[in-house]
Amino acid sequence: MPATPTSSLADLLARARQASRALPDADRDAALRAIAEALEADGEALLAANARDVAAERARGTPDSRVDRLTLDAGRIAAMAAACRQVAALPDPLDRVLDGWRLPNGLRVRKVSVPFGVLGMIYESRPNVTVDAGALALKAGSAVVLRGSSNALNSNRALVATMRRALGGAGLPQDAVQLIDSPDRALVTELLTAHGAVDLVIPRGGAGLIRHVVEHARVPVIETGVGNCHVYVHAQADLGAAEAIAFNAKVQRPGVCNAAETLLVDASVAEAFLPKALARLAAAGVELVGCERTRALVDGVRPATEQDWATEFLDLKLAVRVVDGLDQALEHIGRYGTQHSEAIVTRDLGAAERFRREVDAAAVYVNASTRFTDGFEFGFGAEIGISTQKMHARGPMGLAQIVTHKYLIDGEGQIRS
Amino acid sequence: MPATPTSSLADLLARARQASRALPDADRDAALRAIAEALEADGEALLAANARDVAAERARGTPDSRVDRLTLDAGRIAAMAAACRQVAALPDPLDRVLDGWRLPNGLRVRKVSVPFGVLGMIYESRPNVTVDAGALALKAGSAVVLRGSSNALNSNRALVATMRRALGGAGLPQDAVQLIDSPDRALVTELLTAHGAVDLVIPRGGAGLIRHVVEHARVPVIETGVGNCHVYVHAQADLGAAEAIAFNAKVQRPGVCNAAETLLVDASVAEAFLPKALARLAAAGVELVGCERTRALVDGVRPATEQDWATEFLDLKLAVRVVDGLDQALEHIGRYGTQHSEAIVTRDLGAAERFRREVDAAAVYVNASTRFTDGFEFGFGAEIGISTQKMHARGPMGLAQIVTHKYLIDGEGQIRS
Repeated sequence: MPATPTSSLADLLARARQASRALPDADRDAALRAIAEALEADGEALLAANARDVAAERARGTPDSRVDRLTLDAGRIAAMAAACRQVAALPDPLDRVLDGWRLPNGLRVRKVSVPFGVLGMIYESRPNVTVDAGALALKAGSAVVLRGSSNALNSNRALVATMRRALGGAGLPQDAVQLIDSPDRALVTELLTAHGAVDLVIPRGGAGLIRHVVEHARVPVIETGVGNCHVYVHAQADLGAAEAIAFNAKVQRPGVCNAAETLLVDASVAEAFLPKALARLAAAGVELVGCERTRALVDGVRPATEQDWATEFLDLKLAVRVVDGLDQALEHIGRYGTQHSEAIVTRDLGAAERFRREVDAAAVYVNASTRFTDGFEFGFGAEIGISTQKMHARGPMGLAQIVTHKYLIDGEGQIRS
Repeated sequence: MPATPTSSLADLLARARQASRALPDADRDAALRAIAEALEADGEALLAANARDVAAERARGTPDSRVDRLTLDAGRIAAMAAACRQVAALPDPLDRVLDGWRLPNGLRVRKVSVPFGVLGMIYESRPNVTVDAGALALKAGSAVVLRGSSNALNSNRALVATMRRALGGAGLPQDAVQLIDSPDRALVTELLTAHGAVDLVIPRGGAGLIRHVVEHARVPVIETGVGNCHVYVHAQADLGAAEAIAFNAKVQRPGVCNAAETLLVDASVAEAFLPKALARLAAAGVELVGCERTRALVDGVRPATEQDWATEFLDLKLAVRVVDGLDQALEHIGRYGTQHSEAIVTRDLGAAERFRREVDAAAVYVNASTRFTDGFEFGFGAEIGISTQKMHARGPMGLAQIVTHKYLIDGEGQIRS
């Protein structure tokens, strides 16, 4: 059974638009709980579909770590169901009065949160994104059109079929969740140029995917995720805290966008800080590259290339540079940073305040790890991605970031003079 | 003296970026007041430059009404100076703590308004937009790159030269305001594709300009302005109020985006309402086109075409349709509306509430004219355009809509576990 009847993308988007109209007044939380139950009930079928994707991927000789990202098991299905129930339990992001005032002419103005309408999600590999994105879009009152990667197509078909059946059972339109059910890349371009038919597209994946989307989109897009993040150890840093923060930001989960890629160390503390801090990182398996001053202080550090400063390693690799004070640190971050998450470690109030003001990034940390840039850590209760652009949403995106607003104006016959 | 030294657009944008860094901490209000004084002091030179544009436009045989939009006089220069002083007097939109909370791990999170950085403005004809956009961008802490229409190039050069001189005199970087000083259209495309070098582009002009921008942009854009707005007279309307609102929405200023283009009238009140209401509109010079039921009730109404329902006339022309109740009115607005401003006239609470919920538009009115969708009317103290898209800003855009935010996170060594 295909998840979505075969049809042109325009038809699919028109059905999504139609379905979206019923969502704001439907019991979306009951539907999310029904989806959770259906995922559990369909566990065996979901695993069988996923096994076909996994087998094909193994046959291609893909490394185990990447096959693992594609693989479902009973625990991961339970986690997807639990995520749906968590989203159901969050406050409704719709119909929130965000602002309101009265005009001198007596008109009352309210700014109220409303759904976008039709969201597009383009993402890679992990099948759990299919359920996460579907659940968050539904909670936010929008229909969603999903486009996963072709190597997860069987898994995504099965997951979307389960979600649609649950939606129907809960009395909601099945077309509120649809999958672009073909590996044809032309359909991605068609989605990205469907001006007026899709209200917002969120890409989630590597730098190549994001670039492709920005290049081809004629519809509103929120760029997510690329994080070349820095930890700067200032001259007045607590060096113990600095070591803990640098280690955590690099090692705790190196494959994510809020992990640090470059460590900047003030020259005045480099000798006291670097040998011990880098030894601990090396002992944890971190490959180190660095500037000449770093290499003069610590053995086993290869020379960093210009490319290294600009690279989001997403791996146990760290670039290290000794800088001559705050100005040079700010200049380095301004040149190589991706406006995601940046941290300073310092006890100096003035340095902290300059760093806060002058670093242009979604999240600017004083004396904390960059790893906290996350919708759950921020207390949003959900995360659909981390925006690295300045429009609409910047930083972690939860439900409040995937709704829009309208103004409601109430009068008694007011006319403009 | 050219307003901006000749150079490639990339250089111009790099200088804008550099200049933008100095703005948040500069006395931007003093600079705006200096610009106001300089505009007044340079009045004669500005009028002389404008006279060249006006003469060339007249020589092309352009109609008087369009030549008028291009023309400056002492009063209009005084108005531009006054607008700068008004913007200077508004509250600073930067460094506002928009939200803030404490996480269970002790981290304090603040969401703080910050500048976009480099704004692009692409607009048509009216030279006052050059000053308005420059003043609002400066107040919002961003450098601005202006691209007016080629028929206003001499005027815009002179205005930008005056603004830059005043900026320099006030100790701010002149490159915070720059003009794309060439009629070459390829530069527009270059601006629209300068990903990373320009943070936001706002087009202001007709439907053709907006389409061109959406088609070519690879940078974030806020679409503005196209308004095919409706007034719906419900069965339970106060017909006196309905007549006043319909008349005001069409006639008070027909050439603007928040003017009404179509009047929808419930069949049950059509006979009582239409003859008198349309007679008043016709007497004011409004050309009327309508459906067959309208034409059966009122003489002198030409048949409305499918194209008429979809057209933003921006003129003394109104399309009139008799509808069978709220459902048909909502369906008509959903099909032909441009999500700008929509009004219902009714005394029925349920009808008002359904209209509010089901109409997908930036501004939804109950018993008031659509003409209030305006930054000044809304009390924003400024307006850089009216967004008809759902991302970032929707509806009138004042200063709060042309800034972004960042999260500041303060800790004492917190790391993620």
